[in-house]
Amino acid sequence: MPTANDHIKATLLVKNIGQLVTMAGPIPRIGDAMRDLAIIENGGVACVRNEVLAVGESDDIERSTPLALGATVIDAAGGVVTPGLIDPHTHPVFGKTREDEFEMRISGKTYQEIAAAGGGIRSSVRDLRERTADDLRERTSRRLDRLLAHGVTTIEAKSGYGLSTEAELKSLEVIRELNEQHAIDLVPTFLGAHEVPDEYRDNKDTYVDIVINEMLPQVIDRKLATFSDVFCEENVFTIDQSRRIQAAARDAGLRLRFHADELASTGGAELAAELGATTADHLIHISASGIKALAASGTVAVMLPGTSFSLGSKKYAPARRLIEAGATVSLSTDCNPGSSFSESLPMIISLAAIHMGLTAAESLACTTVNAAVAVGRETTHGQLVAGRAADLVVWDMADYRELPYHYGVNLVRQVIKNGKVVIGEVK
Amino acid sequence: MPTANDHIKATLLVKNIGQLVTMAGPIPRIGDAMRDLAIIENGGVACVRNEVLAVGESDDIERSTPLALGATVIDAAGGVVTPGLIDPHTHPVFGKTREDEFEMRISGKTYQEIAAAGGGIRSSVRDLRERTADDLRERTSRRLDRLLAHGVTTIEAKSGYGLSTEAELKSLEVIRELNEQHAIDLVPTFLGAHEVPDEYRDNKDTYVDIVINEMLPQVIDRKLATFSDVFCEENVFTIDQSRRIQAAARDAGLRLRFHADELASTGGAELAAELGATTADHLIHISASGIKALAASGTVAVMLPGTSFSLGSKKYAPARRLIEAGATVSLSTDCNPGSSFSESLPMIISLAAIHMGLTAAESLACTTVNAAVAVGRETTHGQLVAGRAADLVVWDMADYRELPYHYGVNLVRQVIKNGKVVIGEVK
Repeated sequence: MPTANDHIKATLLVKNIGQLVTMAGPIPRIGDAMRDLAIIENGGVACVRNEVLAVGESDDIERSTPLALGATVIDAAGGVVTPGLIDPHTHPVFGKTREDEFEMRISGKTYQEIAAAGGGIRSSVRDLRERTADDLRERTSRRLDRLLAHGVTTIEAKSGYGLSTEAELKSLEVIRELNEQHAIDLVPTFLGAHEVPDEYRDNKDTYVDIVINEMLPQVIDRKLATFSDVFCEENVFTIDQSRRIQAAARDAGLRLRFHADELASTGGAELAAELGATTADHLIHISASGIKALAASGTVAVMLPGTSFSLGSKKYAPARRLIEAGATVSLSTDCNPGSSFSESLPMIISLAAIHMGLTAAESLACTTVNAAVAVGRETTHGQLVAGRAADLVVWDMADYRELPYHYGVNLVRQVIKNGKVVIGEVK
Repeated sequence: MPTANDHIKATLLVKNIGQLVTMAGPIPRIGDAMRDLAIIENGGVACVRNEVLAVGESDDIERSTPLALGATVIDAAGGVVTPGLIDPHTHPVFGKTREDEFEMRISGKTYQEIAAAGGGIRSSVRDLRERTADDLRERTSRRLDRLLAHGVTTIEAKSGYGLSTEAELKSLEVIRELNEQHAIDLVPTFLGAHEVPDEYRDNKDTYVDIVINEMLPQVIDRKLATFSDVFCEENVFTIDQSRRIQAAARDAGLRLRFHADELASTGGAELAAELGATTADHLIHISASGIKALAASGTVAVMLPGTSFSLGSKKYAPARRLIEAGATVSLSTDCNPGSSFSESLPMIISLAAIHMGLTAAESLACTTVNAAVAVGRETTHGQLVAGRAADLVVWDMADYRELPYHYGVNLVRQVIKNGKVVIGEVK
């Protein structure tokens, strides 16, 4: 008897998967559920164009799924397959790199001293304002190439090195164009309140007014952002200023995320929860009440261990306390030229293991289903189940626990985005 | 007027090098001299077969060097070129990976507890003894591929997961065959005294006798090793046992290296210096007298920050104190399945910056000229000057200081070994 599915033919088949990490099940993952990867051993995945058609045992999938003419067949040869990783916090649009500051820091200068000497975010701002959109797009595109090569198929991408209406819009336009041109999906965030630019150092409130009254309306008008973010921190934007900016953004239709409690405990996490933000990020100095607030809300705690690492800090976000409290946690590279220049989310997974005690399973939950929540794609991404996006990674390992353990190298064999092989060869 | 060089034609030319890091000058680098990379800006390198013919300004080299028919020309497009990196401490010959133990460790178990539960080196020993040489060669070859892909063109490679005459010889044969087959140069080290095998737990001195009287003569007879190494540590091989083994190895014609002062201060560095060893490695707990002994000797201090990192330790070898004392320092991956599974020497350079305060220049000295001393190749490798090996790396960066800063990713564009492009494409 023919069924409704009879005429559906797979355009992509991945077979002989030693561990097919589907992440099927509840979203987000919280507590013990984070360790449930819903693995199918000796699995297979069939996709039709940009969607997953079926997952199951390799033989069953192969037998039950006719192939379309010219379909791609990948033999995973016993390797691991996971959903495409999702990086929920990146600052990829910048010009020059800042290795000079890194070297100053390892020679003993503090981040604050370097900022006082003209370094830091404002150094990138002066640089970005001088560059053309073409130049920025070309540089950013190479960073996206590296992210993709490390298994990342969707990222959140922020502006924030412009800090003028013109330069913020230029940055967001670069993100919009790259989202059209590049295989990676970019979820755009307006971060006009990343820092106070030089010209408003003595007049922060005026700058806050410009963000709200001048930048935000144009961002909305041109549909350049899904999210609004703010650097809520001592000596940057206060709780009150952050609340003003984010309330205005929310009223204008944007969803919210926060840089919160990175350098000191200022109540940023509590504010994020209060305003119903999608995420609160960094959280190195989150208070007990902040942890409680995140756990009680739907706000995802995005942890960025690469930043502690790269800044030479011994202090990391309290991952285990967040997990025990019942918060939804996620992980990100924080890819940026100042405090964490890396496009490798697997590297971050190694750091999360070593410095925060996350198991490989927990880190995979953080970078798939939970990261999907953190970028607002939880109904379409982060799981390998029928109907979801055909974003997946074939890894050169037999056990997913190799991911944090085998550190500092790239174990990706192939990356498939929207059903197409975008990294790696297919024999 | 024709000169003697007129008929010498380059088989490889690398031009338009933004920073040509030649490392010309004294070997080893000590103290402030470690920061002198002898950089030629806008440089070029010409090679003839497996040797460097000339280095200089790109235009000069291009004008003065005729190309052989079919010569390879690489446009570095403003990138950095360094000598091929040298990794002076690896354990690449093993079978199974040990991600299970890594996960136990991050969940709170100590290395000692894991060893007591049947894990640790002896777990790899039981596994390796069961495997064929073919199986081991195939697995090891893939690790060498990764090392090469990260810019490493020469490694020191140890046996040490056999701990029986048969299995140690099998491991050293794998190293010998791979040295013939693989692009990477392997400098072989006999490490029969890596650990005491299960069958001699209660009779260590008998095992020491076997190493000296049974294994060593066959290693010598078959010319399977250049170096002899020993794990000199509390509860492994004592100072006296280590001295016996290494004196016998030296008398038999091998050069010496030591695993010294990794877990406790036991005088291993002092013993290495006393016996005129080429290297003393690990040194996390080296004493003040050990530092003085290394500085007064020619023994290279090989630091392995990846091991502290991967074991989740906060304690790293005292790099700055070693440098200030005038010791010759070097860096290595310690690539092995237990305490540091990584084939990325650039990753180690990031760790050396962040956790030991080494500048990018110091780390480059550690992994080129000084590492050449550590593997006994100081007259032929580690520098890009006329007459040296044509081993070089073209990097995807404009400033060598990007190497530690841009962490966890592979910035290699091309690797040239013995004058041939072995990694990367040439347009």
